[in-house]
This record gives sequence, C-alpha cells and structure tokens, in this order.
Amino acid sequence: MSAPGTVYGVGLGPGDIDLMSVRSDRLIRNARYVAFFRKKGRPGQARRIVEGMLPDGVVEIPMEYPVTTEIPLSDPRYNEILSAFYAECRAKLRALADAGEDIVVLCEGDPFFYGSFMHLYTRLKDDIPVQVVPAITGMSGAWTATGAPITWGDDVLSVLMGTLPQDELISHMKAADALVIMKIGRNIDKVRDALRVAGRYDAAWLVEFATMPNQTVTKLSAAEGKVTPYFSIIVVHGQGRRP
Amino acid sequence: MSAPGTVYGVGLGPGDIDLMSVRSDRLIRNARYVAFFRKKGRPGQARRIVEGMLPDGVVEIPMEYPVTTEIPLSDPRYNEILSAFYAECRAKLRALADAGEDIVVLCEGDPFFYGSFMHLYTRLKDDIPVQVVPAITGMSGAWTATGAPITWGDDVLSVLMGTLPQDELISHMKAADALVIMKIGRNIDKVRDALRVAGRYDAAWLVEFATMPNQTVTKLSAAEGKVTPYFSIIVVHGQGRRP
Repeated sequence: MSAPGTVYGVGLGPGDIDLMSVRSDRLIRNARYVAFFRKKGRPGQARRIVEGMLPDGVVEIPMEYPVTTEIPLSDPRYNEILSAFYAECRAKLRALADAGEDIVVLCEGDPFFYGSFMHLYTRLKDDIPVQVVPAITGMSGAWTATGAPITWGDDVLSVLMGTLPQDELISHMKAADALVIMKIGRNIDKVRDALRVAGRYDAAWLVEFATMPNQTVTKLSAAEGKVTPYFSIIVVHGQGRRP
Repeated sequence: MSAPGTVYGVGLGPGDIDLMSVRSDRLIRNARYVAFFRKKGRPGQARRIVEGMLPDGVVEIPMEYPVTTEIPLSDPRYNEILSAFYAECRAKLRALADAGEDIVVLCEGDPFFYGSFMHLYTRLKDDIPVQVVPAITGMSGAWTATGAPITWGDDVLSVLMGTLPQDELISHMKAADALVIMKIGRNIDKVRDALRVAGRYDAAWLVEFATMPNQTVTKLSAAEGKVTPYFSIIVVHGQGRRP
C-alpha cells in the first residue's frame, strides 16, 4: 500500500490572483485534483477565481451545498443536513487520498478565518495528511481598497458578522476602535441601524468585490438603498496614535 | 520633465517568502530601489526576509529609527523625534520618485495593519503615486501554525495590543469569542494577568516566529517564565457554531 496523499486547503485570498501566495499559485498550477464548494447550479466563486490557472487534465471535484435557505439556523435539521453533506465530501476526498492522490481544495480568503474548509479539516486531519496554506483575507483586500490604514498604534480591531444579534453588534461597535463587518447580505438594515446607534455610521465604508475588476468603495451613508452581495465588507478605520 | 516614479508599499507577509503574494514577489525581484525600516546597527527583519531575492545592482535604502527607548510615549518629544524621522524618509523617497524612479518599500506583515509604512504613506500619497500591496498578516500565520481555525460561524474576533491598559485588555478579552494579542514583549506579565482575570488563560496559545524555520507553538500556560520577543503572537480560538 502506498503512502496516503495530502489534502491541501489552499487559500485564494480576496479574489485577484496576483494577490495569491507563491505557494498557493504553485499548488494550483500543478494540481491533479481540485475540489471546491459551490451552490447548486452556480459556477462557484472559488472556481471562478482560478479560471485559466488549472493545468490540462486536472480532475475537478465540485462539492455542492445542500439547499438550506428555508431552514432556520436554530432548527436541528440545519446542522444535520450540513453534517451529512460534509461527511459525504470527507468520504470522497479520503478515498482519493487513500489511493495516494494529492487534492487541492480551493478556499476563498484565508482557510482558517470563517472559511468552509474548516469543516472538512476537522473531519480529515486525524486520518490523513492535511496542510493549510494561509492567504490574504478578504478584509485586508477591503481596507487596502479604501486607501487608508485600518489600525494605528494601540487601536483595537473587532471583526463582526452581520448575522449577530443587534445588541451584540452595538456593544462591540462602541467598544472597538476599528471595525470590520462581514456576512452583511440580508442583515444590511440591522447593521446600518447598529452603526447609527453606536455613533459609527458616518465613518463607515462599504467595499464590494475588493481587489476584483468590479471593485467599488463608497461611504456607507452614500449607498442608501443599495443591495449588497453576501461578500461585501464594511470597514470603519481606527484613529489611533500616530506621529 | 518625466513622469514621477511610484512608491510601492509591498507587504511581505508573516516571514516565509513562499507565502508572499505573486505581486510582492515580482515587485521585489525586479526592484531597482528597495527601502526598509530597521533599528540602528541591526540588519532589520524586513530586509532579512528578502535575503536572496534582490536583483543584482539594486540600491538599498535603510531607514534607521531614531533611538526613543528612554522617552515615554506620552512625552511630546517622542512624537517630535519620530515626525522628524518620517519627514526625512519622506524627502529621500520623494526625491527619487520625482526623478522618475520606482521604489519598493518592504513592509513586514500587511502594510495597512499596524504597519510602519502608514506613516510614510500619509506623507507621500498626495504628492506622488503610492501603491499598497496587501499581504498575509502575521496573525494569519500564527493561527495557521496552531493547526486550528481561529473563528467559526458568528464568532467575534478582537485584535488587541499588549501595550493597552490592563482594564481595557480585560474587558475586550471577556467580550470577544476569539482573540489575537500582539506587541507583547515587555507587556507579557500584564497580558497573562489580564487573560487570567478574563478566564481565557488556559485556552491561550503562544506562537513565536510564525511560518519561519524557528517557529514554536506552545500553550501560554506551559511557557511560564519564557521571554517572548516583540513579534510573538497570542491566539485564543473561537468556539462558535459548527455542523
């Protein structure tokens, strides 16, 4: 029996392939098996990012999320359905690795920072070799796009998900100097109100498609009524000590 | 008169050159002028990272920090000395850019995330073209080194500097799910005590030299008495929702 292959969780960074690490770039351009998550019937954002980078003859393994939009997060069925899905993905990758094949799993952003790959990682790491390649986070792409540093001196940065309850959003928005807010999508009105209550609304920037050709950077207050995609990021810069 | 050159603030990432972005790698390997901060009499960490990458004939521009160790941060002289230093660096880079030369400024980590380059950026950006290349943060390197994801689901991540007052450290350590603590150095005892009061001490990991050959990862509680260098990072993982 040959040695097992390795599963590589390869961070793609914020979207511009020129911002991928040298290691991620090399792993992707030499891959024999490439796996990635996507919604049913969609090309998938991770797969789209690497368009043109995959070598001839690569085997693609799309992992299609089950539809859960009708099920509330609090319903136990939600976790059951996702658990079954990740178990199935795990079995597929495990079988390939056991046959000695290396597999590159494409991960948007940084794999260990709110990524989907973590759910595979915890299910594989005790049985086969798994390596994680970190990447530039989407939030780094977003604050770089604003053209102003996110943190100075002793600034506290807090990263908040728009899915949090509004009172928790407000207390963190008040307590931190610099803010990053992600998973906005349907939560945009709640996030706007929380920023207003916390007194941070006028300093907030909305970055969409950071580092990509269709990147936009606007004051959040100037983006009233605009629908924001799930991977928009709101940034409030720290104003800490500086000479 | 020719067009002015561009100052590139090039993020080097956490230290392993294989984790540098494709764009940073290309800019450094093709640079004619390379500037970097360092302490007097030291090679400088940024310069050390790119050892072996610089092309023949490159002109190196070390920018040596004035000695401020005897002056408290609150003393106005501290800011005056640093301001004069940054003004001098600015003049040097400005003169080269005005002569049409591009300059690569080496930046540890991500330039807009607690970086020194920001102080040059704000002094140059209105007069000459400045481009910032983001990078993998030192903290991404650190949490990847621990072999466990930093954030899940709705986890709140707060990034704290060890230089903060202890009561502020404690309240943020209590409020957030996941923590990153940087600028530890002489503040290690204060940080340890704050983590204990906040009930997070036993879950804290100390990562030194993340992604570098001498990387170490230890439970903070098992590192009692150990002296930690300035660029050590403490990580407390979030334990949020997961299927």
